[in-house]
Amino acid sequence: MAQDSNAAETIQLTFPDGTIRTYPAGTSGFEVAKSISPRLAKDALSITLNETVLDLDRPITADGSLKINTWDTEDGKMTFWHSSAHLLAEAVEALYPGVKLGIGPAIEQGFYYDIDFGDTTISVEDLPRIEKKMLELARVKTAFTRKEVSKEEAVAHYTEKNDPYKLELLGDLEDGTISFYTQGNFTDLCRGPHIPNTEKVKAVKLLNVAGAYWRGKSDNKQLTRIYGISFPKQKMLDEFLHMLEEAKKRDHKKLGKELSLYMIDPMIGSGLPVWLPNGTVLRRTLEAFLRDEQINRGYQEVITPHIANLRLYETSGHYPYYADSQYDPMQVDDERYMLKPMNCPHHHRIYAREMHSYRDLPIRLSEFGTVYRYEQSGELNGLSRVRGFTQDDAHIYCTHDQLKDEIKGCIDLTQHVFSIFDMPVDIRLSFRDENDDKYGGAAEYWQRAQREIREVADELGLAYTIAEGEASFYGPKIDFIIRDAIGRKWQLGTVQLDYVMPERFELTYMGADNKKHRPVIIHRAPFGSMERFTSILIEHFAGNFPLWLSPKQVSIIPVSDQFNTLAYKYRDQLHEKGIRVTVDDRSEQIGLKIREAEKAKIPQMLIIGEREAENNTVSLRKHRKGNVGTFAFDEYLVKLTDEINNKVLPD
Amino acid sequence: MAQDSNAAETIQLTFPDGTIRTYPAGTSGFEVAKSISPRLAKDALSITLNETVLDLDRPITADGSLKINTWDTEDGKMTFWHSSAHLLAEAVEALYPGVKLGIGPAIEQGFYYDIDFGDTTISVEDLPRIEKKMLELARVKTAFTRKEVSKEEAVAHYTEKNDPYKLELLGDLEDGTISFYTQGNFTDLCRGPHIPNTEKVKAVKLLNVAGAYWRGKSDNKQLTRIYGISFPKQKMLDEFLHMLEEAKKRDHKKLGKELSLYMIDPMIGSGLPVWLPNGTVLRRTLEAFLRDEQINRGYQEVITPHIANLRLYETSGHYPYYADSQYDPMQVDDERYMLKPMNCPHHHRIYAREMHSYRDLPIRLSEFGTVYRYEQSGELNGLSRVRGFTQDDAHIYCTHDQLKDEIKGCIDLTQHVFSIFDMPVDIRLSFRDENDDKYGGAAEYWQRAQREIREVADELGLAYTIAEGEASFYGPKIDFIIRDAIGRKWQLGTVQLDYVMPERFELTYMGADNKKHRPVIIHRAPFGSMERFTSILIEHFAGNFPLWLSPKQVSIIPVSDQFNTLAYKYRDQLHEKGIRVTVDDRSEQIGLKIREAEKAKIPQMLIIGEREAENNTVSLRKHRKGNVGTFAFDEYLVKLTDEINNKVLPD
Repeated sequence: MAQDSNAAETIQLTFPDGTIRTYPAGTSGFEVAKSISPRLAKDALSITLNETVLDLDRPITADGSLKINTWDTEDGKMTFWHSSAHLLAEAVEALYPGVKLGIGPAIEQGFYYDIDFGDTTISVEDLPRIEKKMLELARVKTAFTRKEVSKEEAVAHYTEKNDPYKLELLGDLEDGTISFYTQGNFTDLCRGPHIPNTEKVKAVKLLNVAGAYWRGKSDNKQLTRIYGISFPKQKMLDEFLHMLEEAKKRDHKKLGKELSLYMIDPMIGSGLPVWLPNGTVLRRTLEAFLRDEQINRGYQEVITPHIANLRLYETSGHYPYYADSQYDPMQVDDERYMLKPMNCPHHHRIYAREMHSYRDLPIRLSEFGTVYRYEQSGELNGLSRVRGFTQDDAHIYCTHDQLKDEIKGCIDLTQHVFSIFDMPVDIRLSFRDENDDKYGGAAEYWQRAQREIREVADELGLAYTIAEGEASFYGPKIDFIIRDAIGRKWQLGTVQLDYVMPERFELTYMGADNKKHRPVIIHRAPFGSMERFTSILIEHFAGNFPLWLSPKQVSIIPVSDQFNTLAYKYRDQLHEKGIRVTVDDRSEQIGLKIREAEKAKIPQMLIIGEREAENNTVSLRKHRKGNVGTFAFDEYLVKLTDEINNKVLPD
Repeated sequence: MAQDSNAAETIQLTFPDGTIRTYPAGTSGFEVAKSISPRLAKDALSITLNETVLDLDRPITADGSLKINTWDTEDGKMTFWHSSAHLLAEAVEALYPGVKLGIGPAIEQGFYYDIDFGDTTISVEDLPRIEKKMLELARVKTAFTRKEVSKEEAVAHYTEKNDPYKLELLGDLEDGTISFYTQGNFTDLCRGPHIPNTEKVKAVKLLNVAGAYWRGKSDNKQLTRIYGISFPKQKMLDEFLHMLEEAKKRDHKKLGKELSLYMIDPMIGSGLPVWLPNGTVLRRTLEAFLRDEQINRGYQEVITPHIANLRLYETSGHYPYYADSQYDPMQVDDERYMLKPMNCPHHHRIYAREMHSYRDLPIRLSEFGTVYRYEQSGELNGLSRVRGFTQDDAHIYCTHDQLKDEIKGCIDLTQHVFSIFDMPVDIRLSFRDENDDKYGGAAEYWQRAQREIREVADELGLAYTIAEGEASFYGPKIDFIIRDAIGRKWQLGTVQLDYVMPERFELTYMGADNKKHRPVIIHRAPFGSMERFTSILIEHFAGNFPLWLSPKQVSIIPVSDQFNTLAYKYRDQLHEKGIRVTVDDRSEQIGLKIREAEKAKIPQMLIIGEREAENNTVSLRKHRKGNVGTFAFDEYLVKLTDEINNKVLPD
């Protein structure tokens, strides 16, 4: 080909660990993988060459950075699932001849294909048969082969097949950029890349069927979307299905309702959770925990209004830049106001209220600040995707020399916070892409900051990954990805450096040199959003909250009415210590009372009957554990408060 | 007169204490007063006959309820100040012949008169001369005499005087309703009533001069408004001026800035206070105090969003009824949303979430709920009049049988809360006007509720006044009027009964009779608004907050750098106990450090020097009090925590 005429005879490939290897020009990714290890060649699914994901057998003709993508990489999974979507289409074509195909991409968890089944209606009952066919086709081990075609050729192909969808897609493509992929008897218009062959797919689960308008437009025909997921090992699918089952049981929307934690009320508004008494206790307890930690670390709390003059967001640049996720401005006298989409600019104005000396820094302003951002109604989901949420926000204003210590402090706080919930944390350093000039702030600051972030991470002995190009516009950041009790990952807190807002808000401090300088800002929020974090917490604990967090901590259950008075006495003593305690004084069977306390997931039950009354003892039952013994009441009180103060996790 | 032809020869007058006396028809208020006591006759300023305030010498021709208004009544003061406004006009006419008069009403604190001085400019320097003239005219002791005039007569009078303002006012009046009042050489178009004679006015202070558009319209000519106040005794004026001086020193806007409690930032918005770190501590401490009290009293806290679907307010009837004080609705998808002007409907929806048995009641839902209401920009004032504020709101849902106990509970909470700040509380029972049919809810409920409110007040041995016609639309209420340290009165908390919203939101509970019933709702808020209450608290304490409330509680002041380490040790120990403590470790003179701590109004200072270090003691200085002795550090710590826990007031 013309563009190859000047190709070097050898090429230099740079690997993620920084090593550089030399290969003959035209070597394929597969050959490179093989040169490293036979194991890697076996596991390889695709390559990422200079940020572009390509087929494993594509010849590499020039120098570049190369990653070999296996199942353990994001790019590898995406290739795998995209190929699985083709397999799905192949199986469907085989079982339902004459169907017309829309598009079939990989998604975060698996893949889907939008298909026009004509007059046939497909339901979940049909899925096992399709799954079976997919596995049958996979076992044949046919390669995915790429063919570049001219637009004319492609149009002819789909005109013959009488496929309106692919023809419409072709209309948007330019000649010279069109390719077909074929496995077995199936050919699809596709940019690729794909895995080497179908046999890599060892396990398939089709998860759901839904209606989907062609190209997402409600004027178009509704196609049938089949969702699925696939794995290179059956064991992985089993684990996935188990996790799915667990996740269903733990669904925060289900538990949120059962435990009366929150409600979404259509008359109040979609995506606007109302915190019910139990949920409010949970949230206030989380806030108090974090507030205390922050006070200990020298933060100062502030409270800012939920609306602001548009001028504020024009100054920060958020308006009109983020107008899509913002609410309509409101006219007030001759000014326009907007619901607050973030707390940052308010805090910057607080900083700007007075002159600061370098001796006053760092200044750490924190706020449990409720912000409102528009989300499509289809995106809304319980507490985890909402239109109004409360950030555990803070902004640290410091000198460049203080930056390292402040970052350390933020990491330490974040790690401490999640350790309390027994949530392991993965750390990602999100840096800028050196070749991209979209970033704000001076290059020297970026270089220094990225170096210092790495130094901090190394000094703290953290395991971390670096994601280039993942920095925010105004500075590099550290992302914390937590793993919950069933292994799911959630990106929560971030620590974000900012060189841009100090300029926009003209923030200064007087240095030791008696000159004005710009501070650096750190944006940070360990939980991120109280709503989303609570949804994760509910699912993490499956609603079985640790004692210190539980909306109700102790239920005192007298075995009959004659012990009610004693129960009230104990209740008052527990209440005195700030413990959230109730007495179940109904004239009901003890068994029923225990069952209901179990259902309400109250961590501790105190049973009081004849023997307990005589001996000044209580019989302690723990939630999901049953009877754990009899204790003198005073002894119990000490144990209980210890357990709360130490934030002991459930057994 | 025609309407007197059927008048009885005697009339029966009902007095505020319920006694009924019989008088000859045509007896004047003055004669009635005299018949009760010569003292009352001397002090009487006007009468209130069936809710209408009238001159003391007006003949009473029919049965009715009668109040004799002295200076100690609201109506009496209003009569006094209205007459003083006439006296002001008389003095101005005497000193500045040819002025034209606008209107001159009594206001909450005194009176004003709007005057067209032609080409003459009046400034505060001119006021003493006018005051002097007023007193001179007052001492002449001329009566205020009323004369009913025809419209023709009145128009002729003012046409002759060439007075465009009074002529314009006359245009709006109907013949048969017009009266003139004359004292000395001065006559004014006036509905009255007035005090018997000018000599009652013993002390006058003209307070201010301002521009005021004729009839408040900015297209009209700007007149000169002179504000004044007057008293029946010089001593009262002295006290008033002293109070004014004190109020100026205590101005929460001045102290709010000096103590960095809050800021109003034009870029964020007018009337939208931002709570700075010191103010946030104050507010959070107040909230925690009230939250604890409420938890002890069986309240459950909730959190609701700051916007809601317009349907919610249409259901409550707040929209469009209160549209003037609300913000523009925002379009969200195909619905309209509005900033929350009150928390009530949100709470009603929480109640409506599930079925309730009578056994579950009362349900007490509380929220520190931030609401937004539009106010004219001219009305905005620091923290006391704002566009966004946080109510310490709660709604109690109870049966009619529980109402009395719940009202008692609300009164008890409110009284307890204000006793902590040493603020005496006056109680006003605001009932409906029996003759007005504007009120919602069944008459039987009203009667029962008003009777029960009185019974509760009597059972608690409260001193109270009853204000008929002051009830809210949806039920009777109890208003709490607190007095601050300089004697000013502020209406704060209310306890309000509501029979209307349970209907509108179709709230029910299942009674013991297995039938559905409507609960009663009590709306209550002891502080009313955190913003306004804080403004009052700042002025009440003149910024010298009690230890438990103070943003900073203790400043440790080492006499020189060599004691800094010890200071940090003490700081850590205090901090451990949750005490808000700082160390002033600057290398500055001890005197300067103390002065600055005094200026910052930090309640306690611990001075640490040679002697203290040797003996493990601290020298304690209290704000505004100076040195109070030397204590062993451990002993001090006990004293300090006791003082905080007991919420001890400043000496």
